Amino acid sequence: MAGPPRVVARARTAVRAHLTARLEQLADDTGAGHLSPRVLVGVSGGADSLALLATTAWVAARMGLETEALIIDHGLQADSEGVAERAAEASRRLGAAHTTIRRVEVGTAGAGGVENAARRARHAAFTQRLDETGALALLLGHTLDDQAEQVLMGLARGGGPRAMAGIPPVRGAILRPFLGAERDESTALRRADTEEICRVHDVEWWEDPMNEDPALLRSAVRHRVLPLLREVLGEQIDENLARAAALIGPDVEHLDAEAAARLEELRRDGGELREDGDLLLLDAYALASVPAALRTRILRDASRRAEQEAGTPSDKSLLRRHVLAAEALVVSWHGQAGVPLPGRIEVARRDGLLVWRRLDP
Amino acid sequence: MAGPPRVVARARTAVRAHLTARLEQLADDTGAGHLSPRVLVGVSGGADSLALLATTAWVAARMGLETEALIIDHGLQADSEGVAERAAEASRRLGAAHTTIRRVEVGTAGAGGVENAARRARHAAFTQRLDETGALALLLGHTLDDQAEQVLMGLARGGGPRAMAGIPPVRGAILRPFLGAERDESTALRRADTEEICRVHDVEWWEDPMNEDPALLRSAVRHRVLPLLREVLGEQIDENLARAAALIGPDVEHLDAEAAARLEELRRDGGELREDGDLLLLDAYALASVPAALRTRILRDASRRAEQEAGTPSDKSLLRRHVLAAEALVVSWHGQAGVPLPGRIEVARRDGLLVWRRLDP
Repeated sequence: MAGPPRVVARARTAVRAHLTARLEQLADDTGAGHLSPRVLVGVSGGADSLALLATTAWVAARMGLETEALIIDHGLQADSEGVAERAAEASRRLGAAHTTIRRVEVGTAGAGGVENAARRARHAAFTQRLDETGALALLLGHTLDDQAEQVLMGLARGGGPRAMAGIPPVRGAILRPFLGAERDESTALRRADTEEICRVHDVEWWEDPMNEDPALLRSAVRHRVLPLLREVLGEQIDENLARAAALIGPDVEHLDAEAAARLEELRRDGGELREDGDLLLLDAYALASVPAALRTRILRDASRRAEQEAGTPSDKSLLRRHVLAAEALVVSWHGQAGVPLPGRIEVARRDGLLVWRRLDP
Repeated sequence: MAGPPRVVARARTAVRAHLTARLEQLADDTGAGHLSPRVLVGVSGGADSLALLATTAWVAARMGLETEALIIDHGLQADSEGVAERAAEASRRLGAAHTTIRRVEVGTAGAGGVENAARRARHAAFTQRLDETGALALLLGHTLDDQAEQVLMGLARGGGPRAMAGIPPVRGAILRPFLGAERDESTALRRADTEEICRVHDVEWWEDPMNEDPALLRSAVRHRVLPLLREVLGEQIDENLARAAALIGPDVEHLDAEAAARLEELRRDGGELREDGDLLLLDAYALASVPAALRTRILRDASRRAEQEAGTPSDKSLLRRHVLAAEALVVSWHGQAGVPLPGRIEVARRDGLLVWRRLDP
């Protein structure tokens, strides 16, 4: 007997691996007992999410789980309601036991334009539905192509390692099986794979017109940048971008965790060293001997923490130049003045301490 | 009195900062007493290296140092001798106290083609001349543009964080002042800045025809990829790529150093656990609890060390799939077979140990 087409088998393996890992993780977790044997799949009506829904319905049924298609209607296109209805209909046909359509309001005022506002609204709806259903996971259909685009967009925006690490395959209850196993992008699926899976299931997908809008960064990256990169740098560029993300992801996670631990060790704000208006104190001498990779993270985290503490948050972001100026107080100290930071605070050096404090009103 | 043009002042600041840091480092070093007060500058005859030479001659003279222009004739173009002579002549005019032309043989058989072979031959000549002269540093004229190209080429080749970290501004005696201070790309110079400096000094530079050869990766990146990226992603893309490199560099350095230290802690090959043909033994249980970012590096380093130890080195490189298969022996052990590695060795699990050993002949 012939098995399923190879691409279907690969997709099933990916989904099964992610669901199994999630169940194992929950088994180790105390307090996870209230979860229901339900799995949510975010369905946009595109090939990636319909392929994921079909795959998940099949795999979940064999693991004793039921699948719910969660369709977010962003209300951004004229026929968004119709698109949502057709996605729900396709989901039922592909084996979803439940389908839920949620209409969200997308604000347009926020940073990053309509793309980011839609993403924020969508994720808020995801979290809300996870809470309502007690589902054990929500699966999203991002593919290796999305990952490659994400890395390039991270570079375009001047992001650091965190941005280069791309989209996480696993973050809490949110799983992206088509990005492959964590830290192994070789098991990821391509966008074309998901289209093939849809053809196998004889289901029609919907092309989001936003994906074709050349004014949007992702669309420009997809339709102009990546084709040229493939031509000049070789067809493997998507895989290579995804691999870069998979390699950098664990580095960033480890360094961030290490820096958080070191920050606590270096704090000196519990006792008598604290003066009026001080928010956070670090041992400057000890900080000087911390490796640069950790030191800049510690300074970033301390600055954010002090801003929160001050209670006068700013619209402005903490920038690399702020962190480098704070670092200069540690590694090339020559009596320079304090460094103003976002949120009406500053960091200055005092008696071998690095002191974050309120700026005088 | 008007100072020098702004770009000249910026270049001088960059060179002075690098030379000062080098002198401070050497002052801390025992055994550096034999060095001469000479600074070498690698001069190709291009705008970047001639600008660096002019800047260094000016700065070095004020620091009590003398400048030598070191010109490598790769013999790859018809008139390479004439180009070298003209570069030497320009260098003398720009204030070099010494000029040295070295003809090198560029093999073409090696990995990476003629670009890499030329780079290897050039760097061998650099090292040799540093030894001969006892010069305290060799300066190279790489600019922020080169750094941006390097990051893209690293991505194109599927490199990991190490490749994304780009060209190091400082590596031992080799300094690249125009890449900016270490970890601060905001002080870097652009290629156009070096052309402006050459015009200020009224010196003509030479355009390397290899830079225009569309068959070469760097040339394609420079003339096709980056212009499109600037158009689609914005003019700041070069700076953003350089910033990514500057941010990732210290991460990689710290993680590599941490992994090397952990590898030593985990070794169990000193005693009675060692069997015939064993090369290197690690504690598999301890390795399982090491963060992934370090674990994969430990496995990579241990595999390279074992290959050296075995004395049967391979042309093949250690690949990510080798490292992931070795990691599976640690984190998802289910009795699987040993993993063959380059250099006629394998890594297998035995009694709670990870064992690198010779493959039977």
